Amino acid sequence: MILKTNGERLWDSLMEMATIGPGERGGSRRLALTDADIEGRNLFRKWADEAGCTFRLDTMGNLFARRNGKNSEAPPVLAGSHLDTQPSGGRFDGILGVLGALEVVRSLNDHRVETDSPVEIAVWTNEEGARFPPAMMGSGVFAGIFEQADIYTHQDPEGITVEDELRRTKQLGESPCKLFQIRAYYELHIEQGPVLEAENTSIGVVTGGQGSYWTHITLQGQGSHAGTTPMNYRRDPIMGAARIISGMRDIVLKQPGAVGTVGRLETTPASINSIPGKVFFTVDNRHPDEEILANINQDLMKLVNSVCAEEGLENEFTNIWKAPTLNFHDECISKVRNAAESLGYTHRDIVSGAGHDACQINRIAPTGMIFIPCENGLSHDEAENTTPEQVAAGADVLLNAILASAGN
Amino acid sequence: MILKTNGERLWDSLMEMATIGPGERGGSRRLALTDADIEGRNLFRKWADEAGCTFRLDTMGNLFARRNGKNSEAPPVLAGSHLDTQPSGGRFDGILGVLGALEVVRSLNDHRVETDSPVEIAVWTNEEGARFPPAMMGSGVFAGIFEQADIYTHQDPEGITVEDELRRTKQLGESPCKLFQIRAYYELHIEQGPVLEAENTSIGVVTGGQGSYWTHITLQGQGSHAGTTPMNYRRDPIMGAARIISGMRDIVLKQPGAVGTVGRLETTPASINSIPGKVFFTVDNRHPDEEILANINQDLMKLVNSVCAEEGLENEFTNIWKAPTLNFHDECISKVRNAAESLGYTHRDIVSGAGHDACQINRIAPTGMIFIPCENGLSHDEAENTTPEQVAAGADVLLNAILASAGN
Repeated sequence: MILKTNGERLWDSLMEMATIGPGERGGSRRLALTDADIEGRNLFRKWADEAGCTFRLDTMGNLFARRNGKNSEAPPVLAGSHLDTQPSGGRFDGILGVLGALEVVRSLNDHRVETDSPVEIAVWTNEEGARFPPAMMGSGVFAGIFEQADIYTHQDPEGITVEDELRRTKQLGESPCKLFQIRAYYELHIEQGPVLEAENTSIGVVTGGQGSYWTHITLQGQGSHAGTTPMNYRRDPIMGAARIISGMRDIVLKQPGAVGTVGRLETTPASINSIPGKVFFTVDNRHPDEEILANINQDLMKLVNSVCAEEGLENEFTNIWKAPTLNFHDECISKVRNAAESLGYTHRDIVSGAGHDACQINRIAPTGMIFIPCENGLSHDEAENTTPEQVAAGADVLLNAILASAGN
Repeated sequence: MILKTNGERLWDSLMEMATIGPGERGGSRRLALTDADIEGRNLFRKWADEAGCTFRLDTMGNLFARRNGKNSEAPPVLAGSHLDTQPSGGRFDGILGVLGALEVVRSLNDHRVETDSPVEIAVWTNEEGARFPPAMMGSGVFAGIFEQADIYTHQDPEGITVEDELRRTKQLGESPCKLFQIRAYYELHIEQGPVLEAENTSIGVVTGGQGSYWTHITLQGQGSHAGTTPMNYRRDPIMGAARIISGMRDIVLKQPGAVGTVGRLETTPASINSIPGKVFFTVDNRHPDEEILANINQDLMKLVNSVCAEEGLENEFTNIWKAPTLNFHDECISKVRNAAESLGYTHRDIVSGAGHDACQINRIAPTGMIFIPCENGLSHDEAENTTPEQVAAGADVLLNAILASAGN
């Protein structure tokens, strides 16, 4: 059985949700647990209520809207994402995962399909982490990655705690925030990258998430006068940095699927007519394979050492953070791929470069993700965009993957 | 006739002068026209007075201490430099030129030599420009490069004008600040670079000054997510900058005597997990030959354009400042070289990478400079250092070059 959703209804809901906490350029600003965030949640609650759902709110404010199945004792199939946004956020990042799941429920109603397992829409609290760090907070506590007691004490820039805001906004529910039995979890999301759009492909079958290494590199040379120091007397760290940056890209380009970014670079002193004594820069390397990523890091370290030896520089090389790679559940991946195939949508396997609630849930339950293209790969910006056709295709795949997991 | 100075006396005077406006690490802080600067000038005045000099103060505070010659109507031979320092300045930059000239006068007295032309010690006001921009202020007005009426209005960071401070400190003299007839001008200075020390050479015969181009380069690419943007979809300006920085050095290394420096580089945004949308950096290129310098600039511009074309970047390339190259006077250069040769000091021709009062005076009168080595090429820092032997050798060369110009 292949069912379709109502893409127009989904698009309308997305557009209506976007008017809450409106941004200045057509996007949204609904920072976690602000009044705007709650207003968005309430609109979702109203819609889910109209679709016949029942609600459960947990002690982290994670909200579950349930459409019962033939077997109400069976573990539910979950689908969702988040409704909070970045400060100048878009209309789709997170929201599509929640309203896509709502559209699945609405479509199951339309088609009068009763699934074997219940289907639940999950709204995870504070995925963005823009107001309260860390990101993926609600799903992280749910998955046992974060301690709720600790998370409760985290503060926003004005010193207001997560617990304060959960209480003030009446989002501190009665269900304990911890894993319950789940048949599968699916999350529909915009890609936040350029690949699907560039390849004119409708559906990304997300197979996993990249691991990443964040590295701080400091090169120490000899600061000196730009006019009076001949080239052969220099130990100039910016020359070392330039070689390392180019060489880092060469290392990364040898590994298909790897990415490498230098996002910050600072010279000390920072003066047009002084050779800097010190250069600091950052490297962010990512790859879906743990071992390949570790090799990239090793090659980078060797490169830094050899360039420094040649340029007469000292260096400090510090991996300040490592995030493990992640593989989604084979069965969920297959169900997403089969759904896209059966629906006749162009699709390709893809790896997520960003973190998602699904990455947390994957630690404790079978999980899969569906990507759709977004305009210019842009996200975390009010200009974030996609099309009614693309969201409809994504929701169709979500519907049929859920059906396959829930049974009917 | 080859005469020698009293190196020990010169060193003692340098050390005594350094105690005025003492720095925290053994250097000095005598910003132009502060009380400390005036205290330094007064100590010099006392010494020059004891050496039998008469004084003339001009309307820019430039101070001339005169030792008369057989022909008091003849144009004097000038030698000098400045007594003001950087905020954390050294004991030699400028001071050596003034006290070296004082030592010449003292030595002429010791040797009872009467020169044909008068010899005058020049103390130029505000060479460093650290309190009041621009640098080389007093010598610049004297040489007609700056307008005195304009310079009078220049302010320090607290809004005090040059004229205010000249009046308050009683340095606004009666002689008009303008060129008078000068037979020759000599300036003794530390190299402020590593060449003489590295080559174990006592004397640098300065043949001229480098020209310089200061350039601002902005590369515009596409800011994006460090995780979700595959390498082949990137237009990453830091990768362009790295190639241009390395390529700039290659261009410079092809031209003996050229130098190239990237002193500042900024990424926007500056975030470890964002591909920067924009990178700004500076280039300072110098060479003693005007045409070669222009070619280096052309090659750099071509490099920027070709790298940007390959990397998919836009660029802005702006030469924000060009300083012309400068050749000292052949006759003065020869007299310096001959003096070093006759005294048996190791010497080499050298080009000044920094600006000096001599660079201003060279526009209007026959000028030469003498460099001596300084420790690690360091200057503009309290750690600036040289040795009694080196300052003595420099003063000996200054004495004999002055003698050659003044006649006796």
